[in-house]
Amino acid sequence: MPDLRKDPVTGRWVIISTDRARRPSDFVRSRVAAQPQHPCPFCPGHEALTPPEILSYRENGNGHWNLRVVPNKFPALRVEGVLDREGEGLYDRMSGVGAHEVIIESPEHKVSLAELPEKRVEDLFWAFRDRIVDLKRDTRLRYVLLFKNHGDAAGASLEHSHSQIIALPVVPIQVLEEIDGGLRYYAFKERCVFCDIVRQEAAHGARLVLETDEVVVIAPYAPRFPFIPRVHSSHFETAHPSLIQGLAWAVRSTIRKLEKALEYPAYNFLIHTSPIQEGPLAHYHWHVEIIPRVTRVAGFEWGAGFYINPTPPEESAQFLRDAGL
Amino acid sequence: MPDLRKDPVTGRWVIISTDRARRPSDFVRSRVAAQPQHPCPFCPGHEALTPPEILSYRENGNGHWNLRVVPNKFPALRVEGVLDREGEGLYDRMSGVGAHEVIIESPEHKVSLAELPEKRVEDLFWAFRDRIVDLKRDTRLRYVLLFKNHGDAAGASLEHSHSQIIALPVVPIQVLEEIDGGLRYYAFKERCVFCDIVRQEAAHGARLVLETDEVVVIAPYAPRFPFIPRVHSSHFETAHPSLIQGLAWAVRSTIRKLEKALEYPAYNFLIHTSPIQEGPLAHYHWHVEIIPRVTRVAGFEWGAGFYINPTPPEESAQFLRDAGL
Repeated sequence: MPDLRKDPVTGRWVIISTDRARRPSDFVRSRVAAQPQHPCPFCPGHEALTPPEILSYRENGNGHWNLRVVPNKFPALRVEGVLDREGEGLYDRMSGVGAHEVIIESPEHKVSLAELPEKRVEDLFWAFRDRIVDLKRDTRLRYVLLFKNHGDAAGASLEHSHSQIIALPVVPIQVLEEIDGGLRYYAFKERCVFCDIVRQEAAHGARLVLETDEVVVIAPYAPRFPFIPRVHSSHFETAHPSLIQGLAWAVRSTIRKLEKALEYPAYNFLIHTSPIQEGPLAHYHWHVEIIPRVTRVAGFEWGAGFYINPTPPEESAQFLRDAGL
Repeated sequence: MPDLRKDPVTGRWVIISTDRARRPSDFVRSRVAAQPQHPCPFCPGHEALTPPEILSYRENGNGHWNLRVVPNKFPALRVEGVLDREGEGLYDRMSGVGAHEVIIESPEHKVSLAELPEKRVEDLFWAFRDRIVDLKRDTRLRYVLLFKNHGDAAGASLEHSHSQIIALPVVPIQVLEEIDGGLRYYAFKERCVFCDIVRQEAAHGARLVLETDEVVVIAPYAPRFPFIPRVHSSHFETAHPSLIQGLAWAVRSTIRKLEKALEYPAYNFLIHTSPIQEGPLAHYHWHVEIIPRVTRVAGFEWGAGFYINPTPPEESAQFLRDAGL
């Protein structure tokens, strides 16, 4: 059973993943690049190589799947077991109860989201939504993190195009910080800070990448927070179909622009949404973040949580606008 | 002039480094590994290739330098200029006033801290101390970050062994979070959380790597915080000579153990200390963090600030204890 442990200074929870435990000598070996897996467990015909399917979307008529959701074979957290919390002297721990799932985005082995038909990109967001709605029923779980690692430099360990879902019994510290920040702003202004950002960026234009009726894509003023839906909403899973459609189009178009502008970079994308057991929040607004992995993170960033960005966002936005759809 | 911009949600300040500005196309080029620089600007005989020296330690008698501190040729922040703060609609910015310096650790081109004589490792910590004492006089500056990036994977861009100093007009968010965490603990317990960690780890032993009269080295319960000095002190620059000596020995020995156990990994190390313009703090305790770069940071970590650690710290500590000095 994995262990969740809390840093006694900052309050950050860490998963000590005993099931995937690696000796220090394993790290030495892993510096040699991973070999592609044969046969690929995510390709059609190899369904028996994954744990039993949780969800799939299939073609009408022929029954071939377009998307599958399966449990991660090497999960960071486990659904089984009791969520116990206990102290160890001054430290706090709890059992690593949660879920870790993989969304196989396509039967094709390696395909960019920018190349998939729009409808299939929508399906990815529907799958995120369907899983969050299901996982929410388990009241031990407080947060669902939806994310994709694309490319080696972004931490992808399997080649076949996929996204991931991790459901947690705690709310991650970075999400708490955003929610707290939103609350401070709301307390002072009685407005959602994300709604204000959307308004200012749409009016100002210099950091705008693209906009639709549903979604704006911006290069943020001081990194982070692209893809804010226009209409205030705290929970991703409440998105209506036209918003999912607009979001899928915007994400696909932006990845296409990034792939043109940066020549197919590795990237991470993730959805920041509200804790699943909470009601609607006036001060938090879900959004998607896309992080192309073009700079290296060094001691300064690790030590201070402070980033040096060598490209002003106004230039990034201009470059992405110019890249065409 | 670089720009400091604040994220309106989390309050994180970011440096938009216009002097080192890189177009998106530069990132494409930079994916090809950097060539070693010829001639090396940090090797003896090439002193004219660096900006004028700020500080140096020299051999008695022959006058050859053992360590030099010079301004970074491509600084993230600049000492010149007025520190102005202004709004841009809902956003906040200030001018990028600060300092960015390089400590050339040795005349030898490439030498591990584990191979340098102990006295010379002490010199590195004396140089950190001397620079902090000097920079503190500039009351525009609030924080001095002391760090080293070793190896390509840790973000080192020059091969010659060096550390770095960045002085900032704001306190980085991650340090603020530690100070706030320490304050919450102190408010509840009336004790320093770091002192409590030292006591518990020394008594328990499973996560202890090494200890001296001055310093304990631990694999933290839920990552981070090795090298805590035993005696409570909030400001690194007040360390007395025997503590600097003990610290240098402990850092050198631990890097030696890491290099044996993990076969010369890339790593970052950094000193977390209190904001320089503040008096002594009962609730904060300076310490050194060493981060070997053996795992990759992926979307989950970026998105949630939540880490999956595949090696329990008890095992890491055991492994490092066994590695010998």
